[in-house]
Amino acid sequence: MFPERLAAAQAAIATHLDAAMTALPDQQVAHAMRYAVTGGKRLRGFLVLESAALHGIGTAAAIDAAAAVECLHAYSLVHDDLPAMDDDALRRGQPTVHVKWDEATAILAGDALQTLAFQLLTEPALGTAERRLALVAQLARASGAEGMVLGQALDIAAETAPAPLTLDQITRLQAGKTGALIGWSAMVGAVLAGADPAPLGGYARALGLAFQIADDVLDVEGDAAKAGKALRKDAAAGKATFVSLLGLEGAKSRAAALVAEAEAALAPYGARAEGLRALARYVIARES
Amino acid sequence: MFPERLAAAQAAIATHLDAAMTALPDQQVAHAMRYAVTGGKRLRGFLVLESAALHGIGTAAAIDAAAAVECLHAYSLVHDDLPAMDDDALRRGQPTVHVKWDEATAILAGDALQTLAFQLLTEPALGTAERRLALVAQLARASGAEGMVLGQALDIAAETAPAPLTLDQITRLQAGKTGALIGWSAMVGAVLAGADPAPLGGYARALGLAFQIADDVLDVEGDAAKAGKALRKDAAAGKATFVSLLGLEGAKSRAAALVAEAEAALAPYGARAEGLRALARYVIARES
Repeated sequence: MFPERLAAAQAAIATHLDAAMTALPDQQVAHAMRYAVTGGKRLRGFLVLESAALHGIGTAAAIDAAAAVECLHAYSLVHDDLPAMDDDALRRGQPTVHVKWDEATAILAGDALQTLAFQLLTEPALGTAERRLALVAQLARASGAEGMVLGQALDIAAETAPAPLTLDQITRLQAGKTGALIGWSAMVGAVLAGADPAPLGGYARALGLAFQIADDVLDVEGDAAKAGKALRKDAAAGKATFVSLLGLEGAKSRAAALVAEAEAALAPYGARAEGLRALARYVIARES
Repeated sequence: MFPERLAAAQAAIATHLDAAMTALPDQQVAHAMRYAVTGGKRLRGFLVLESAALHGIGTAAAIDAAAAVECLHAYSLVHDDLPAMDDDALRRGQPTVHVKWDEATAILAGDALQTLAFQLLTEPALGTAERRLALVAQLARASGAEGMVLGQALDIAAETAPAPLTLDQITRLQAGKTGALIGWSAMVGAVLAGADPAPLGGYARALGLAFQIADDVLDVEGDAAKAGKALRKDAAAGKATFVSLLGLEGAKSRAAALVAEAEAALAPYGARAEGLRALARYVIARES
């Protein structure tokens, strides 16, 4: 059931992103934008659609928000891969944007993908102006200098810090870098339905942390061909990770405990939240 | 009258930007954001406030939009100054962000300034959710891959193009690179008041083009100390500009004609539009 739901969401998001970009001028920067949103697991977009479904909102009324978070995520990856940042040549099994084109194109394509994310949240299909505006405000808070960008900045700073980060510091860094956007995605359905997002907040916090711990485990244990990106970078750089701080088994059991916590947070929704529970189990079982 | 109005707007925008950034974490990326929005002429923000005043809307009900466009503009300068783009070391008489800190900080500060621009447009002081959402949608269109970013991309591409651009191509490039954001700024007052923005559109198109021609003239005739940035870069790079295509005197008379056109477009507003007329005269007389 879960693989089919995920595949259906991935296909719907891909189709919608294509449509959102058809009006763009036939220019290299637009080609790079399309390239940057191709492939990937689309877990954030899936989370948006599942969160909407949980509140009785169908795909058509939430797809702009799912596409928006995928644009936002893609922009962060394109900029994060730049030579001045993580300097990665491979992403989702393909050359990164600055390798395929050049750095200027990657900077501009990332910039325009962020813009497109906010533009998509203004689409009328998402409902009343109040709700669309709430999504804009919350995405801005999640992705800016208090959220995702802060996490990225702390991550870059950690590379040249005199001492490795502590568990508390890494947890805070990751809450920004990956947690904030996952948190936004999880609460979209509640905002669109005018419902209480609190149980989804607890779910998303545990999910986001489990996701990042699983990423650190994957960096150590994973297969680069399956992951579609360079691995073993953290250990080579001497960076503190959840694995270096907790050990491999300790990190795995912490991630499993967080998945159980995420599932438990969904208790108020009963059986209807099965898709979100399956997603939580998936994030620590994935190979990419 | 005009210098005092401009100075008052600059001060109000500076105060508001400070307030908008006080909540940011005490981190390098936030310091770089504050640095990047310091100084500058704030012509776009002034345009927002004058456009609002023309529609009977006071500073308090428009200042978030003025601050937003200055954040958007500052982000574009920070990224445009990067080594992979225009590679500029001096901006507004100070070291550019990547020179003062590093490239990663400049990329992230620019990213977060774009985010902050959209966040500011969600502020309740700007009026109904419908109007704030319209400002978000229109700023996204003006600044993304159909507007400002497209103009930047065409500008970068022109540097390695086999032949210099034609007048039509440069006009199109500049309509995106500087015109779109000036156009957005000019119509904010009409959107906030629910009025017809058409006369302001004609004003902004002529103003934007006059502004860019004046920039090209300044690049040839200006004083780098007063301009606060490197000049004579276009000729050194063999780039086509309005001056290379029209000649120095031809460019000046074209700019003057556009200013007259901009002033004429304001006829429906009568004497109330004097601030906007003075701004049009200022853009071709400035030394920075």
